[in-house]
Amino acid sequence: MTDGLLSPVRAGTAAEAATGDHAWLRALLDAETALARAQARLGTIPADAPEAVARAAGAVTDPGELAVRARGAGNPVVPIAADLRAATPYAHHGSTSQDIADTAAMLVAARTRAPILADLDRTCAALAALAERHRATPMAGRTLGQQAVPVTFGLKAAGWLLGCLDARRRLAAVTLPVQLGGAAGTMAGYGERALDLLPLYAEETGLAEPVLPWHTVRTPVVELGAALAQVAGVLGKFATDVVLLAQSEVGEVAEPAAPGRGGSSAMAHKRNPVLATMIRSAALQVPAYASVLMTAQGGAAHERPAGEWHAEWQPLRECLRVTGGAAETAAELAEGLRVFPERMRANLDRLLDVLGEHGSDTGPGAAGALVDRALAHHRALEADRGSS
Amino acid sequence: MTDGLLSPVRAGTAAEAATGDHAWLRALLDAETALARAQARLGTIPADAPEAVARAAGAVTDPGELAVRARGAGNPVVPIAADLRAATPYAHHGSTSQDIADTAAMLVAARTRAPILADLDRTCAALAALAERHRATPMAGRTLGQQAVPVTFGLKAAGWLLGCLDARRRLAAVTLPVQLGGAAGTMAGYGERALDLLPLYAEETGLAEPVLPWHTVRTPVVELGAALAQVAGVLGKFATDVVLLAQSEVGEVAEPAAPGRGGSSAMAHKRNPVLATMIRSAALQVPAYASVLMTAQGGAAHERPAGEWHAEWQPLRECLRVTGGAAETAAELAEGLRVFPERMRANLDRLLDVLGEHGSDTGPGAAGALVDRALAHHRALEADRGSS
Amino acid sequence: MTDGLLSPVRAGTAAEAATGDHAWLRALLDAETALARAQARLGTIPADAPEAVARAAGAVTDPGELAVRARGAGNPVVPIAADLRAATPYAHHGSTSQDIADTAAMLVAARTRAPILADLDRTCAALAALAERHRATPMAGRTLGQQAVPVTFGLKAAGWLLGCLDARRRLAAVTLPVQLGGAAGTMAGYGERALDLLPLYAEETGLAEPVLPWHTVRTPVVELGAALAQVAGVLGKFATDVVLLAQSEVGEVAEPAAPGRGGSSAMAHKRNPVLATMIRSAALQVPAYASVLMTAQGGAAHERPAGEWHAEWQPLRECLRVTGGAAETAAELAEGLRVFPERMRANLDRLLDVLGEHGSDTGPGAAGALVDRALAHHRALEADRGSS
Amino acid sequence: MTDGLLSPVRAGTAAEAATGDHAWLRALLDAETALARAQARLGTIPADAPEAVARAAGAVTDPGELAVRARGAGNPVVPIAADLRAATPYAHHGSTSQDIADTAAMLVAARTRAPILADLDRTCAALAALAERHRATPMAGRTLGQQAVPVTFGLKAAGWLLGCLDARRRLAAVTLPVQLGGAAGTMAGYGERALDLLPLYAEETGLAEPVLPWHTVRTPVVELGAALAQVAGVLGKFATDVVLLAQSEVGEVAEPAAPGRGGSSAMAHKRNPVLATMIRSAALQVPAYASVLMTAQGGAAHERPAGEWHAEWQPLRECLRVTGGAAETAAELAEGLRVFPERMRANLDRLLDVLGEHGSDTGPGAAGALVDRALAHHRALEADRGSS
Repeated sequence: MTDGLLSPVRAGTAAEAATGDHAWLRALLDAETALARAQARLGTIPADAPEAVARAAGAVTDPGELAVRARGAGNPVVPIAADLRAATPYAHHGSTSQDIADTAAMLVAARTRAPILADLDRTCAALAALAERHRATPMAGRTLGQQAVPVTFGLKAAGWLLGCLDARRRLAAVTLPVQLGGAAGTMAGYGERALDLLPLYAEETGLAEPVLPWHTVRTPVVELGAALAQVAGVLGKFATDVVLLAQSEVGEVAEPAAPGRGGSSAMAHKRNPVLATMIRSAALQVPAYASVLMTAQGGAAHERPAGEWHAEWQPLRECLRVTGGAAETAAELAEGLRVFPERMRANLDRLLDVLGEHGSDTGPGAAGALVDRALAHHRALEADRGSS
Repeated sequence: MTDGLLSPVRAGTAAEAATGDHAWLRALLDAETALARAQARLGTIPADAPEAVARAAGAVTDPGELAVRARGAGNPVVPIAADLRAATPYAHHGSTSQDIADTAAMLVAARTRAPILADLDRTCAALAALAERHRATPMAGRTLGQQAVPVTFGLKAAGWLLGCLDARRRLAAVTLPVQLGGAAGTMAGYGERALDLLPLYAEETGLAEPVLPWHTVRTPVVELGAALAQVAGVLGKFATDVVLLAQSEVGEVAEPAAPGRGGSSAMAHKRNPVLATMIRSAALQVPAYASVLMTAQGGAAHERPAGEWHAEWQPLRECLRVTGGAAETAAELAEGLRVFPERMRANLDRLLDVLGEHGSDTGPGAAGALVDRALAHHRALEADRGSS
Repeated sequence: MTDGLLSPVRAGTAAEAATGDHAWLRALLDAETALARAQARLGTIPADAPEAVARAAGAVTDPGELAVRARGAGNPVVPIAADLRAATPYAHHGSTSQDIADTAAMLVAARTRAPILADLDRTCAALAALAERHRATPMAGRTLGQQAVPVTFGLKAAGWLLGCLDARRRLAAVTLPVQLGGAAGTMAGYGERALDLLPLYAEETGLAEPVLPWHTVRTPVVELGAALAQVAGVLGKFATDVVLLAQSEVGEVAEPAAPGRGGSSAMAHKRNPVLATMIRSAALQVPAYASVLMTAQGGAAHERPAGEWHAEWQPLRECLRVTGGAAETAAELAEGLRVFPERMRANLDRLLDVLGEHGSDTGPGAAGALVDRALAHHRALEADRGSS
Repeated sequence: MTDGLLSPVRAGTAAEAATGDHAWLRALLDAETALARAQARLGTIPADAPEAVARAAGAVTDPGELAVRARGAGNPVVPIAADLRAATPYAHHGSTSQDIADTAAMLVAARTRAPILADLDRTCAALAALAERHRATPMAGRTLGQQAVPVTFGLKAAGWLLGCLDARRRLAAVTLPVQLGGAAGTMAGYGERALDLLPLYAEETGLAEPVLPWHTVRTPVVELGAALAQVAGVLGKFATDVVLLAQSEVGEVAEPAAPGRGGSSAMAHKRNPVLATMIRSAALQVPAYASVLMTAQGGAAHERPAGEWHAEWQPLRECLRVTGGAAETAAELAEGLRVFPERMRANLDRLLDVLGEHGSDTGPGAAGALVDRALAHHRALEADRGSS
């Protein structure tokens, strides 16, 4: 249960499951266990210690109880480490809270990013198909809410596609490293061969190896927040257009129908664009959450700040799960979007009359060629990924 | 369980209990039941209908399941109303999702505001006592991190007190009204005597009676968010000063000791200012959450926007529970703050020497009289409240 | 010249004139001169000193040059005070930069608030007239972009009115005090009778007398920012509705025509809702500016922070001038809004058919009575102001 | 004159000069002239038309007057295009306001990014030198404001360096494209060979060629804002540490002295860390400005939104000039930072005693090797740039 009642955009989604307290606790314990494994490989703890740590971790299961105990030290790792060390002295060996908390955050980020990227791929594929199918479907272009000149629905879909491709690229490019700094970033506590521990820890977690401990150089967190806000934004643009095109007076697209979807508690006749609404609710929130991460970075005092680090956790989680929910929702919307070319044509006719009266150009310009450019760009990016 | 693992500032606090999914579900059901009671008093539903609604409400208990069903309509009221109406036709009678959701949000706000105000009162009382006790305790005033001229600790505490009093006044002044607009704000659906229903609904919920439905006039939400951000801010200022005064090299105050508090997972010798750290983590988050509410207001299209309303819910909850957690934490900090006048004196001596060399004034100015003004202001506000 | 090229919403408005560098410099000098006047009345400087200060102030005229010199101390008061004191030793007597800078900010706020309130009054009067005139003009209510049930245009205007009245009340209620704390808030430097100087300074500036120096208790700044964001938000809601109702496919309202307004550089046939667009651009910015003020408050270290105070200045100016520009623009929009009841009727007819098929209520509910409530509320608030 | 009185961080800097109204107007006119040049090369306007456009552009010089006229259409390009076309029919040929405004914004961004990158390079070089020189200078590491374990000043400088390198890389990587979409993104208006115009326009402006018009796919703006916020943040972290290390009670570093710098209007004895203060004022503002860009993206309706585009302009300018001012200020701070190893040693001694009593490790861990890693990373990035 992850307090999702007020956040339908992520209720029941993969991102929700990957970011709730149980998932985060799992990542914290995974970070502890992976550390033990890396240390055992290096030989700084016995070979059978990781098994003992893993066993002890299996007994730590109640995030609610840990949350309250976390108030003692201001972070949840202190009570977790205490429980683990009560079971085995090789748990949390030479470590510090932030190493575990930051590594766990990156694990959660990696685990949530995977379905987000997959959902973006689904969305891109669906939008590319729409762009191709409607390469020559004319409709009214609208600026400042007014019909302006003709465009094509294919070009509109190509624009959505391009935004998603840009944002996908940014998100995929964010480096998610382990944290291994020790009490104040010198790696003291991890022993003589601390630097050798770094690649092993990266290997055990599947995360990247950083140049330095990043306890107060918050690049991974800030870039992650910015990339997620960019994802939420491009999905928000898509959803905003869907809401506007689906207006009763416009009627050019509709959301995919599903049993029980889009109903109103008061109006039986209505079909609300509820997928787009939920996506928009995400796009309106994530920039603010990302701004907390950006502001916190500038005040990250000394070797660990008194509040700026702690302020990151919940907004980072919201960035991940709200954006993730939006990505899953957007894939459903893109794949099922219903398009009504005849309605587009009808709405356009009036505009063509007006333009004709003004003697203005009524053609679609380079819309078709631009769709081709976007589709080629999509294919090229996919080929790159396929070959890498 | 309220996903508190990443938010120690509110873990286990009264604000957390008052704002979690179970509490919010309770408020949603209370809003439905109170509506039935008001309608029965007006005579638009049978006299025994409210009991049936209350009974049906008692069977709605799983916010996680409702959260997932909420995706169908984009809000949690639709599945709740469906469940209630399956039990009795008089539930959600003539109503609309937003009436219930907004009224419930105000109920939650009222229920969370009460402990926040009580905690602020505790904090104010403790700060007033510190101001009085240390009315003449000299210490170095510091600007831009540099020792500047002498002040008194009493004046510093008086400044914290004043900020808290200002913010308390703002928060207490926010009007929390019922929502009763029907499908699009005309109150159609509530029958001929809809306007007569309004005061009855206010009475049944204990909330205020609005001038108009406020479905897209978000004054209550925006003022609440701003007031909570102000509360978080003044507590943040207090906490920032505590962190700085508690620095190893300054040592003029310390947090109250408690078993297990302020420990580090790596450094046995350290006492971290963990209460202040948690409070600061709140002060760094709440302004961003409030900004979502403010931005959403400007885009509240027509009679219900597709996203702006939905974007409010989670940030409003965070404003309430993070600020509430900070208020409870701050009361503990203020009541237990340890003050070291001799250390203040020692740190000041060097400054007095420098000032003496420059022939500058080394007195505390009007610090004492200013403390008296602040204390008188505090007493006057308390007397006002006592008499009202 | 106030760098207005990228901010048409405030270009040429009263708020722009009241907040530019020249106006701010004027306020800084007024704060210095008023201080001298208050000190002369108290007798701590000679009776003719204020005249000398005023004369010296008259020679300080180049904000661009002062801005560069401000880098030496991080604030513009230091070079100003240096120039004044070069002319007369009684300038900036016993004062500190923040006393002058904060008092000047409050002077600018007061001078900008006056036209904002006047513009809000114009807007409220125009919206009240629309509500009254269209008390019974039926139109489609729309939720999530879909036609829902009938409302009246009068009720829609009444909603806009209510939001403006709420925001006006908040803005008018913000207390704007002088700052008089001296180097570190003890008022040392202002002499034995420093506390007696406070009401005199308030009188000379026309500002309020604070309980304490508020150098690090930023209530006035935070409440001002929040109130301005609320104003921008309610105007943004009004503008959002205008943009949507003016869409080519809806056509229920239009902006007032004016020579050269609403043109496009590419499309001769278009009339863009440009007033509403500019207002919306404000509503999208001000919440972010206000959030800087709120965040800065929580980090206002000691007796003057190294950055948080300095970070306030430009966002506070933007809050004032962008909101002020929006208020002036909104008054023009409200006063000239063109309403097309027949188009409303035509758009509604289709909805009535659908509702009829579903056997749903097609009446306007209590819309008329609600309009009356809003108008009575407006009149009551005006009467209150008239009598006070 | 660029309204810099309230923004000392950028007063008189290269970023200010590059972003003021005169510079922006220059960029707008450059965008018009470059378009004419590209069109003449393509042969869609006469070969001598660009000269006529350039001549006409030379006569457009008053941004204040244009700003007021910009209110007619909501953007400054409409009056500029009108003035140019009054002089020659080949100006703004087939173009639309957004093509010119967006291209100009990218030109300004490119012109401001150059000095920012140069200043970051200066800062990185200075920090690398500090890291190397103080590779083995011991000092107290501090977490949550408390002395924790020993670190070295070299490692601290290496951390600042790493943050700057990360942010520099992000900022340099942002693609700044021309905009060439025509009225609604189809490039209609630019003629049959519109797509051939795209690379020519890119060449004439020195900007990149986009895949599609990005009128409502705001990737360049959003990535630019995020990168600038990241720059401001890492500089803010550096400045925060300087303020804290320069505290009277710590005294481990000091800002470079300069005539008139760091003075106080009230306290002759003080040396304020004014460079760091100004940098911090930037770091507290830029995230909020960037969040406006991120939020606007999600609401970028249809082919041009009514407000979201317009809301970008001023925050984007502030991101550029405030960050730019911070970068120039940080270079000065890094190059002149005074470091006091003996004071670091003295402050550390007490900690070593405490650690000794607890039997804790008192060594610097892998600090030296970590400094070497950071320096190698710096050199590798520089070599990459040298060879590319």
